[in-house]
Amino acid sequence: MGVAKLVAPIFYLAIFALLIITMRLLTVGSVAFDAIETPFGKTDKIVGGAGTFIALSSSFFVKDQGLISVVGDDFPSETLDYLNSKGVNTKGVQIKEGEKTFFWSGKYHNDMNSRDTLVTELNVLGTFDPIVPAEYQEVDYLMLGNLSPEVQRTVIERLPNRPKLIAMDTMNFWMDIAMDELKKTMSLVDVLIINDEEARQLSQEYSLVKAAKVIRAMGPKFLIIKKGEHGALLFHNEDIFFAPALPLEDVFDPTGAGDTFAGGFMGYIAATDDFSFENMKRAIISGSALASFCVEKFGTTRLTEITSNDLNRRVEKFVSLANFEMNQLV
Amino acid sequence: MGVAKLVAPIFYLAIFALLIITMRLLTVGSVAFDAIETPFGKTDKIVGGAGTFIALSSSFFVKDQGLISVVGDDFPSETLDYLNSKGVNTKGVQIKEGEKTFFWSGKYHNDMNSRDTLVTELNVLGTFDPIVPAEYQEVDYLMLGNLSPEVQRTVIERLPNRPKLIAMDTMNFWMDIAMDELKKTMSLVDVLIINDEEARQLSQEYSLVKAAKVIRAMGPKFLIIKKGEHGALLFHNEDIFFAPALPLEDVFDPTGAGDTFAGGFMGYIAATDDFSFENMKRAIISGSALASFCVEKFGTTRLTEITSNDLNRRVEKFVSLANFEMNQLV
Repeated sequence: MGVAKLVAPIFYLAIFALLIITMRLLTVGSVAFDAIETPFGKTDKIVGGAGTFIALSSSFFVKDQGLISVVGDDFPSETLDYLNSKGVNTKGVQIKEGEKTFFWSGKYHNDMNSRDTLVTELNVLGTFDPIVPAEYQEVDYLMLGNLSPEVQRTVIERLPNRPKLIAMDTMNFWMDIAMDELKKTMSLVDVLIINDEEARQLSQEYSLVKAAKVIRAMGPKFLIIKKGEHGALLFHNEDIFFAPALPLEDVFDPTGAGDTFAGGFMGYIAATDDFSFENMKRAIISGSALASFCVEKFGTTRLTEITSNDLNRRVEKFVSLANFEMNQLV
Repeated sequence: MGVAKLVAPIFYLAIFALLIITMRLLTVGSVAFDAIETPFGKTDKIVGGAGTFIALSSSFFVKDQGLISVVGDDFPSETLDYLNSKGVNTKGVQIKEGEKTFFWSGKYHNDMNSRDTLVTELNVLGTFDPIVPAEYQEVDYLMLGNLSPEVQRTVIERLPNRPKLIAMDTMNFWMDIAMDELKKTMSLVDVLIINDEEARQLSQEYSLVKAAKVIRAMGPKFLIIKKGEHGALLFHNEDIFFAPALPLEDVFDPTGAGDTFAGGFMGYIAATDDFSFENMKRAIISGSALASFCVEKFGTTRLTEITSNDLNRRVEKFVSLANFEMNQLV
């Protein structure tokens, strides 16, 4: 009886502490300005950045998440307010007085599958030291958006406890200039999300099946290879899942589609708290559905317009697109 | 009673006639020699041709089919015997004494997605007049392999009754030199099977969704767009189905994969006698499974090695690759 008297308050205190300090999902990624030119038109500076797309996309599933990033004092507070209204805690977004926000400008070719970078101004991102606010200490799921592998690793190291699952995006740029750093960070994560060209560069294998083996030997137990309009592949042990992309009449602006995919994927995993292979399939379909909205207008526009109903209807389109049932015949 | 006495014998005679003369599937296509070079090796002249691949592939489903083609007296009778043993009636394969069989030679690039044609010797195919043997007069399903659109149309015109479903393959070559003829033939068929580049050329649209609308307005109610390692799309009215390709460690020789796909597709349709959208999905998966074998060795080698059990196991791989089940979440 004496023990029971002691245990009960400790138990309730522990539950209370968990409720207070556990954050469902934490994203690290750029919050930035983009200027985009496509065959359909061009924009002035609009809000973009991997962290922005990931947080907006995952907010369809997760109502309690944090964002770590850095902006200059030129960044609109309205965007941070909007993120807050979607359940995104932006205490981890440092605002550097007297400095400018990261800026990228690019022009897409007619096929929308390739693009030229016109301008990259690192600005505040050049000296980014990712600070983990006190209230982000306990994190269930961590999504590392495309950033220098050193910054990505710093965040992992600064969390007192390892999240249940860490996913990471990266790009060919880091493979070109920081392969050793990249491999160090990769060895610490569970899920790597890259595109087919990056998988080939990273593994030095043309076949994606062979590439997946080489890359998974570098650390990530799960590998997602994005193939743009050709869908995405998930590799884990001997299992492979293929998710189609929705065939679209027009791709208006592909910027942020990969980040939106990653955000939807990780948001779904975090909300369901289930990273079985079967649930990862659902997460990939969810991410693909959100990405299919993202490309319909410039920047984050579509992600701020659509409702949960729109998303559900889009997911149903994926089901009807990919669904078939075999009868044994031969 | 007098009428019944008359009707019964006529009824049985009709059934008897149907059993005798109705052919489940008729294929028209080249029977040829190929010489192939890939990064993995090269062959001397081996047996190839669209008609050969289609008939071999569909023979996994259909035990009663006919082939219309033409060869020279240099063509091995063993190949025709082998086709006969698989239920392929080759009475429609004309053997031209003193002439040579169609010969194609090509070299694949390292990515296996593009190739150079080294030699094309039309030989007997240059003057091909497709004769429909008496026993092929009643045909349920017709598969027109890639040939001149005029030859394809001649076969349709020479059949006394229109088959239930006519499918047709073609290629960019005919779009370049015989677009009007091609459109005439296309207007007579139900299913067109082409690849993504050909769909773009034919429709002058980059988006495959837009291309499909333009092409279906030319006649075929069903359009299948093959995307090689990226799978295949089926369009019909507002419905779209996406079939993945099996991710492979190595593609040894892609020659004939498209024909094998078409043969498996049409063989499945003919054997099930069902061309609903749902059954076409199964037919596409069946064709994809057979094509995934075809590329594992040079030419028709794998198609002559595998069993129905192998095929069933391969189809199961497609099911596990593409299968997912959503739970409504948002």
